[in-house]
Amino acid sequence: MEPLRSIERLSLNQITTDRLSMREAADVCVRAGVPWIALWRHKVADAGLAESKRLIRDAGLRISSLCRGGFFHAATPEARRERIDDNRRAIEEAAELGTDTLVLVCGPAEGRDIDAARRTVEEAIGELAPLARSHGVKLGIEPLHPMYAAERSVINTLGQANALAEKFDARDVGVVVDAFHVWWDPELYAQIKRAEGRILGFHVSDWLVPMPDILMGRGMMGDGVIELRRMRTAVEAAGYDGPIEVEIFNREVWDMPGDEALSLIKERYLDHV
Amino acid sequence: MEPLRSIERLSLNQITTDRLSMREAADVCVRAGVPWIALWRHKVADAGLAESKRLIRDAGLRISSLCRGGFFHAATPEARRERIDDNRRAIEEAAELGTDTLVLVCGPAEGRDIDAARRTVEEAIGELAPLARSHGVKLGIEPLHPMYAAERSVINTLGQANALAEKFDARDVGVVVDAFHVWWDPELYAQIKRAEGRILGFHVSDWLVPMPDILMGRGMMGDGVIELRRMRTAVEAAGYDGPIEVEIFNREVWDMPGDEALSLIKERYLDHV
Repeated sequence: MEPLRSIERLSLNQITTDRLSMREAADVCVRAGVPWIALWRHKVADAGLAESKRLIRDAGLRISSLCRGGFFHAATPEARRERIDDNRRAIEEAAELGTDTLVLVCGPAEGRDIDAARRTVEEAIGELAPLARSHGVKLGIEPLHPMYAAERSVINTLGQANALAEKFDARDVGVVVDAFHVWWDPELYAQIKRAEGRILGFHVSDWLVPMPDILMGRGMMGDGVIELRRMRTAVEAAGYDGPIEVEIFNREVWDMPGDEALSLIKERYLDHV
Repeated sequence: MEPLRSIERLSLNQITTDRLSMREAADVCVRAGVPWIALWRHKVADAGLAESKRLIRDAGLRISSLCRGGFFHAATPEARRERIDDNRRAIEEAAELGTDTLVLVCGPAEGRDIDAARRTVEEAIGELAPLARSHGVKLGIEPLHPMYAAERSVINTLGQANALAEKFDARDVGVVVDAFHVWWDPELYAQIKRAEGRILGFHVSDWLVPMPDILMGRGMMGDGVIELRRMRTAVEAAGYDGPIEVEIFNREVWDMPGDEALSLIKERYLDHV
């Protein structure tokens, strides 16, 4: 497995440097020579949509994806309708920002009926797909680790995400492969192959041992047990040659000065991904 | 889905009342009318094998399983050999105690090579199966939640456990379905059906929201989001009519007086399982 020879596909997912403003995040990318950035909607809202667009464009960066749509299931039909409306806005924001990928974190169940929540996710994607196409945006279903099934997403394996995506046109709906969420899966490499033509993103971080925290325990690439290079090679063999997002939820990384964090990210990206 | 009408299949997994000695655990079961108990090897070692056997027999209890064999993978061939030897002793202990089920927690990888660890697990089970049969003990592969893949077990779905078990004679190797580990799986009910004739145990607890702790966050039945009755009905439809172990790792439960814990367990078992 060949290492990457440059950082031309490296994208900073904005949550990795959570304490930086939109402008600061753009600036550290420029200083580090990182050409891509992935934005989060709450941060775009903080900075303002037009201002975010201007800042990123003026910095000469490209936006690999917008995080996140989803969270489709809710207790009442009215609340589910509000979730759909919010996802419509997310598609519009992605289009306005000039990214072609909206990452979907599909949301948990309300209570015990996980099957009902999974049906809601499918219905919602079916409703949103035409709008996404008309805006030139693709919906990327990101399976989340099964430990998030009760609180963040009822889509928990790449196989399940593939099966769901395959119900729709590949021009509209695909999958996002995040190493942290899928590394453990005995079906992983077969499902990456199956996802050929539908992979809309590849996210990297690492799984630390011991695992310090369910939400904030993601590690820097190389600090954990994930076979990142093998997985990157596999998504490439399945036809994906787009940006590779570094998405790390970790307070130690958050506490690092931005330039220092980017320097470490570049080093680990070339050494481990 | 019919509720259970009695506690005749209820088994106290000894870890649920971790602060109790072997004698105390047996006594609370007797006072509560709980007919089964599942033992842990380190607790059997603390009390002594012969004394444990005597205490449980004199209390009139039956042993649903011994926890646990497994942890097969290790850094060196010598260390792996020691693990096999330890599992041989576990089989002998299970036979001596008079239970027919040794639960396997198959163990993590050393480092990043999860595939190698999975091969080691298969080889180890193949080596142990004849010994298990000669002792009248079955090996129950318990898939652990994917969040434990790096630290406790590389067998992480019921589908994977089924595929592994099917490589061996059903008289020797089966699977253990623990609700906490498998509830999230979109393949769950298909895999329970597939496991027909190989289900060696059914364990219940609950998945709390929010999840308080990776290891100690299991909840009392009814306090979380798992569809326990649906799952119990499914394992019955797949032919399992054996004991149902209550296995809860939770400090609040540990801090309850034993009789109070058993009273609550019985109530929740009849209401939710």
